[in-house]
Formats: sequence, structure tokens, C-alpha cells
Amino acid sequence: MEPSRALQYARTNRSKFLSELKEFLRFPSVSSQPERAADVRRCARWLARHLQHIGLERVRIIPTRGNPIVYASRQRARNRPTVLIYGHYDVLPGEPLSQWHTPPFTPTIRGPDLHARGAADDKGQLFCHVKALESYLHTSRALPINVKCIFEGEEEIGSTHLLPLIARNKDALRADAALISDTKMLAPGRPAISYAQRGGLRAEVEVRGPGQELHSGTFGGAVLNPVQALCEIIASLHDEQGRVTLPGFYDDVREWSEKERAYMARTGPSDEKIVRDATVGQGWGEPGYTLYERTTIRPALTLNGIAGGHYGPGVKGVIPTRAVAKLSFRLVPDQDPERIGKLFREHVARITPSAVESQVRTLSPIQPALVDRDHPAVRTAGFAYKKGFGAFPVFLRSGGSIPVVNAFQEALGIPTVLMGFGLPDDRIHAPNEKFHLPNFYRAIDTSIWYLAAAARTLRGSSRVGRADRLEREWSA
Amino acid sequence: MEPSRALQYARTNRSKFLSELKEFLRFPSVSSQPERAADVRRCARWLARHLQHIGLERVRIIPTRGNPIVYASRQRARNRPTVLIYGHYDVLPGEPLSQWHTPPFTPTIRGPDLHARGAADDKGQLFCHVKALESYLHTSRALPINVKCIFEGEEEIGSTHLLPLIARNKDALRADAALISDTKMLAPGRPAISYAQRGGLRAEVEVRGPGQELHSGTFGGAVLNPVQALCEIIASLHDEQGRVTLPGFYDDVREWSEKERAYMARTGPSDEKIVRDATVGQGWGEPGYTLYERTTIRPALTLNGIAGGHYGPGVKGVIPTRAVAKLSFRLVPDQDPERIGKLFREHVARITPSAVESQVRTLSPIQPALVDRDHPAVRTAGFAYKKGFGAFPVFLRSGGSIPVVNAFQEALGIPTVLMGFGLPDDRIHAPNEKFHLPNFYRAIDTSIWYLAAAARTLRGSSRVGRADRLEREWSA
Repeated sequence: MEPSRALQYARTNRSKFLSELKEFLRFPSVSSQPERAADVRRCARWLARHLQHIGLERVRIIPTRGNPIVYASRQRARNRPTVLIYGHYDVLPGEPLSQWHTPPFTPTIRGPDLHARGAADDKGQLFCHVKALESYLHTSRALPINVKCIFEGEEEIGSTHLLPLIARNKDALRADAALISDTKMLAPGRPAISYAQRGGLRAEVEVRGPGQELHSGTFGGAVLNPVQALCEIIASLHDEQGRVTLPGFYDDVREWSEKERAYMARTGPSDEKIVRDATVGQGWGEPGYTLYERTTIRPALTLNGIAGGHYGPGVKGVIPTRAVAKLSFRLVPDQDPERIGKLFREHVARITPSAVESQVRTLSPIQPALVDRDHPAVRTAGFAYKKGFGAFPVFLRSGGSIPVVNAFQEALGIPTVLMGFGLPDDRIHAPNEKFHLPNFYRAIDTSIWYLAAAARTLRGSSRVGRADRLEREWSA
Repeated sequence: MEPSRALQYARTNRSKFLSELKEFLRFPSVSSQPERAADVRRCARWLARHLQHIGLERVRIIPTRGNPIVYASRQRARNRPTVLIYGHYDVLPGEPLSQWHTPPFTPTIRGPDLHARGAADDKGQLFCHVKALESYLHTSRALPINVKCIFEGEEEIGSTHLLPLIARNKDALRADAALISDTKMLAPGRPAISYAQRGGLRAEVEVRGPGQELHSGTFGGAVLNPVQALCEIIASLHDEQGRVTLPGFYDDVREWSEKERAYMARTGPSDEKIVRDATVGQGWGEPGYTLYERTTIRPALTLNGIAGGHYGPGVKGVIPTRAVAKLSFRLVPDQDPERIGKLFREHVARITPSAVESQVRTLSPIQPALVDRDHPAVRTAGFAYKKGFGAFPVFLRSGGSIPVVNAFQEALGIPTVLMGFGLPDDRIHAPNEKFHLPNFYRAIDTSIWYLAAAARTLRGSSRVGRADRLEREWSA
């Protein structure tokens, strides 16, 4: 099946696609805020109806104990390969709202960009594939390959319910490769494929002091302040050079060859670029590594937030009862999130002064992931990029985590193609997130090309029929 | 003038006094929350009307750029001494509200205690004197001495506008001694006079990192996190033993004689008692000093609060843009708050890593204060306590600051009698603040006795007439 008619359809329907994406972005489907649960469900229903509408089949809103998973497939290309397309329709909170130029859930076009929470991460990127599928289905009533789409609503909170669902529904999800667009390119004309993701682990450290708030005059100097104790614990987790001091932290970190590091130096962003993208005055971190290496092949411990005592306007002379810090470990091969969590809990317990109590909660362990750059599914993406963006991709490592990549590898035994369409300045997870609209349209073309090429490059799955039956009986 | 009729009146009007105090406590006159400004003004008007109603004269609500000051006097006792009674009608916020058993601004009697924000600090204590004055005025239409009352609405935020008003209205406020009840006794039957107050200085340290919130996966390890940098700055302000490490901090701290320290050991609370009152498992702080000494003759640096990044429910993998800590220095003779502020600003600027920016704001400098234990006004308080509580007071140092004490000393040249009626477990500045009602009634008796005795023990002021005229022309 040649992609020409699909490409033509995509070209003539850009404004329709854009207004549909804006509709999708209007749902404040924030997974980390329980009060948004109804919005998340409404967003899932909208997405499912949309997939049905464009001609996908077996559309299901699979309930979980958390947010629902939206599934759809089209498996009529007998003896053709099957690609599992993953995306997530949940987003981060819009807060701090005051820093947005336009409200996060009022999609707004400014210049070449569409501004909204989720515009790039990940609704916009997910939607590129949906529109590519629509372009085939509308023009040919068929797809060049078999496709299964799985769009979750909990990526930003650790894919808590998707990961076990994948493990329990291996047959239903059987495919030859997974395709995810939730990463970024190097620059507008320079596509990139992410072949490595850091793993992660979230942790909360809580320090408790007095049983009740105390007057800081009456008791100041005689009582260990929990805010101070927490600061001392946090401060002790790095040395002056920026190394993590948690004992055993670097034990299992894989050392990479000079050849790999030279490749990274050639293809990856420069220190100057990372500093600029980070809107900071200078870089920081572990000596002996470039900033790109520090964010990809080296692990990190980052503070996401801290709070304790009186931090509102005005003054309140108190010794607080407690203080809490939230932090994320970013882990690399061959670190094990569970082991790091254990080391961390033990270490904090050991260094907590006896005059206060501490508690560590760890959650969302995610294994680091690596993808073979030479797998046919990955090379097909290179071809598709060349068609869609006019350039072959570079292969980049990514500092973040997409929990599902590891699950696809471990549970389904398939590689994941991380074909990103975001840009470094898309401000994902930050105020004024945007998606570059030229990338939106080129990404749809790229996806159209990918589906066409995969028909030739991927080995066809022989068990489509069986999977088809299993799709009716999701084990959630 | 014998106090017997006033005492009799006070005894028979206890339930009336109590219900009036509850009315007073219902105003959420929180000075540190700008949104409470109208409540603060309503509380001032209620108090002024009340003073008028009981027979005080020259009642004024003196406007300031902040909260109004309520003034009233009664100066018809020719050739008798004048006592300046100070109190504050502003209170701290009720937050955290969830920790209150009954709402902070719904005064509630439980057992022998009246629970409400401000019950002890300071509305309840202030009201003891008001009711003592009423007891005389209702029964004798006169007072044994001349009295000036000045009740401010900004004590909890540093008495910003009262202090300059005192300096500008020295003649109007002329008196022989000042009387303040805003401190605590040692135990229900053991009255105490505070003869020393620590000074203070508030500070806010803000650390700014990236210009926008960053994805902690993408940038974690390459950017100095402002929460981490703030924690490192805060952690570096104490050594492991609990000494403050700010260079020069202890330079001007007065060393006390063995005799004075022995007196303190005899009269002051034990370590065990302070640990119990603080609801902690163990004490902490500067080696070589008892907990009582650490909170009175030794300075301290206490963290009041900290905030930065995402600290709400759920997770958000960000590198925050900024983090702020609020802290209070508690200072002792002969430390100068302005000098400490300068040392602190310079020190933080020096230790801030170059990868982030820091800013220090200092506010509310308060000089430490000392009162002569042998002044007749102080000894009169001993007599009054004996009459009201059946015991002579011990002389205690206090760890907190009442900014006005120093101003009375410096601007008016008069000693301040700190005749406290609070108890160590009154939970001032904390949830479930209370006032012990037996203390309320005994304190009114004590004030009645004080006014009667002061007529004999204090030297009469010869300039009452002139002050009377000046009271009409407040320079606010």
C-alpha cells in the first residue's frame, strides 16, 4: 500500500487535525491530582470515541484501579507485521498557573507553536499517529500493517496500572515492535531516536520533630528543628563536586566504552546547548562527564520539592512539627531501583539525628531501558524520518524515564522505537509547554511513511488471530 | 484606696468577664495575614468601645500605616504614680487548622481551660488588667493610681508601627513604669516575672535556579537544584554540636557570672521540664549550657519554614526554579540585630554556589532587653502576685521577644514589669492555644492588688497634666 493518498489527505486536513488536537488538549487530564480524576476519565472517553470514529476496531476503555487505559486495534492485514503504538493522555498539573502566558488548558496558537499542557508531552505526539492511521483508513479503508494502540492515563505518575496489565496480557499485546513518540528531536530539522532511557525511583523523606508547633523564642536553641534536620539530610546527599554520596549508589553503574562516549560527543547536545535549554547560567554536576553524559549515562538525585513549617506570606515564629522533601532518583544501567531504594532508606535512617524521627517512602521504581540501534524497527524509523523531516535521525540517549519501554522489553520481548517529535525548548513539565506545529504535520507524514515501510521491514506476526480473541478478555 | 470592693466585684462578675473575653477572642485579628486586616480593625474598635464603656478616658483608635493602636487613660489621681499598661490584641494565624480540636476563633471551655487563638497570647492576659480597672471604676469611680493603656495590633509581626510611635510620643506616654502581661508562670501555683527577653531578627533566604521549571529527567544531574542549594546553605549554618556557624555570631554574646547561672539553675525550669513542654524526645543544642540557658542567655537560629518546588499531593518530576526558607535569629545581650543581619547577608552571599543565585531579606530587628529585678515597680509585682496567687514570683528569663520592652526602656526611660499569667503548656503560637481560667481570675485579683500597692511604692509623676494635653495630639 503506497502512502501517497494518505499523505495527500493529511496535507489537506491540517486545520481539521489541529482543531481536533486542541479539543484533546482542553481536558485537564492531570493524573497526579486526585480531584482531576473525572477529567481524566472524560478525556479517555473522548479519545476512545475518536479512535472508533477514525475506523479503529476493538476500542476499549479498560478500567483499572487508577485511570483507564484506552485500547484500539486494526488487524486486518493478514501476514503483515504488527506494531504496538503507545502514548499517554495524562498530563502534569498546570501549576504554577501564574507563570503561563495563556491558561494551560486553553490551547493557544502563538507563532508556529501550539501552547498547552500536554501539547508535546504527550497528547500532541500521540495524536500524530492517530492522524496517520486516520489518513490511511479514510483513503484506503485499510492499513499497511496491523496496529494495536494502547494509550494510558498514568504515565506521569509511574504507569502504576499499565505495567501489571502488560504483564498479564502478553498475548493480547503481542506485536513485532512498539512505537512511542514521547521524546524530543535535537532541533527542528534534526530528528532523533532515543535509544536509552534512565530509570527512576521517587522518594519522600519526612522528618518529624516536636509533637506540636513550638514558639521559636521559647524553645529556639533547645530543640532540633525538623526543617533544619531535613536540610542537613538533603545537603549530605551530595558532595561539593556534585557526586551523590549515598553509599553504594555508583556500585552498579555501567561504564561505557570510549567509542560509545565519542559517539555521544558527536551526536549529542553540547554543554552550551544544555545550559541554554535549562535557562541557567552554568552547568553543574559530577566531574569527569559532559552535561549530556551527566543526564544520560550517569545517575542523578534531584529534589522535586520541599515544604515544612510556615511558608506563606508574613512571619510566624514557630519551630515546625515536620518537614517533607520529595525527590527523584534518575538511574542508569545496571542500577536496580529496588536496591537503590533500600540503600536510601537505610542511609537516611542511619544519618537521622536521634533528636528527630525520619521516614522514607519510595515509589514508582522504573528500570533503565536500552534499545538496539540496529533493529529493523529502529532502522525503519530512520527511513520514515528522512521522508517526513528530510533528514536521518541521530541516536540520542534520554535522561527521563518512560516506564513502559522496559515493560515492553521484559514482558513482550519486543524493542521499542522511540521516535520523538518534541523539541528541546518545548518546556514539557513546565509552564508554557508547547508543540511546534510544523513538527506536528511532519510527524504525521513520518508516521504514514513508517507504517508503509514497516510492512516490508518487519517480520509478520503469525498469531494475530489469537491475539484478536484475547483482546476481548482484558485482565486488568 | 483599699482594693476590697474591687476584689469583691471581680469575684461576683467572673462569668460576665469570661463571656466578654470570649467575645474578644472571636475576632480573627491575625496581623500576619493581610486578608485579616478588616478583622483586626473590627477587633480594635470592639476593644476601644469596651475601654470607653468601663470608664477609661481619652480613648483613641490611633491609625497607623499598619494596624491601629488602641489607647485609653485615666489620670485623675493627682500626685499619684502613672503606670503604662501594654498588651496586644493581634494574634498568630490559626493554621494548621486541622490540628485544632475546636476552631481557633470559636472560644471553647474544656475543663479548667479556655481554648482559642490568643487566649493566652495576649488577649486573655491583656484583659486581666482591663477587668481590674473595671472593678475599681465600677465600685469606686476612681483608680488608686493613674493609668495609660496602649494595646497594639502588630506585636506578632514586630511592632513595626508602635515602636516609632513610642519614640515620637514620649511625653504623651510618660509614666513611672510599664506593666505587661504577655509571659508565662512556671506552673499554676508558681508565678514568675520575666526579667530578660531575647532580641530577634527575621530573615528569608531565597535561592533561584533555572529560569523555568525543568524536567528532572532531562536535566537532572546537569543543573544545580535550588532546593538542594538552599538545603546546603541552611545545613551549613549549624555545626554538628548545634552551635551556629555564622562567622562572628557569638562575638558580642555576654558571658554571665557563675552566680547568675547558679541563680538561673535554682529558679529556672529543668532540662526535663523543657523537653516535656516541647513535646520532644530529647533536648538539643549548644554544648556547655542547660536547655534553659540555651533558650535565654544563648542566642539561637531557628527555621520557621521552608518551601520550594512541588510539595502538594502526588509526584511531579521537576527541578524547581526557586526555594525559600524563613528563619528567626533569637539574640541576647550584647548582640546587635542590625550587625547580625549584615553578617548573615554577607555570609549567605559568600557561601552561595555560583550555579544559583541567592537573596536574603532581613526584617523586624528587636534588641534584647533586661529589667532590674530590684526596681520598686518590679517588687510591687512580687507583692501583688503573693496576694493574687498566694506565692512570691521567681524571676525568669524568657526566650522570646516583646519588641516594646526595649522601646519603653530606650525611649521612655522606664522599666517594664513583665507580670505573666500564662502557663508553659498554654501552646501559644501552636494549635489548641488555651488560657487557664483559674489564672484568669487570680490575675485580675493580682492586677487589682498591683494598682493599689503601686500607689504607695512608686514615685508620683509631676507631669500628668502636660501628658494629658499631649494625648490629644498623637504623632502616628
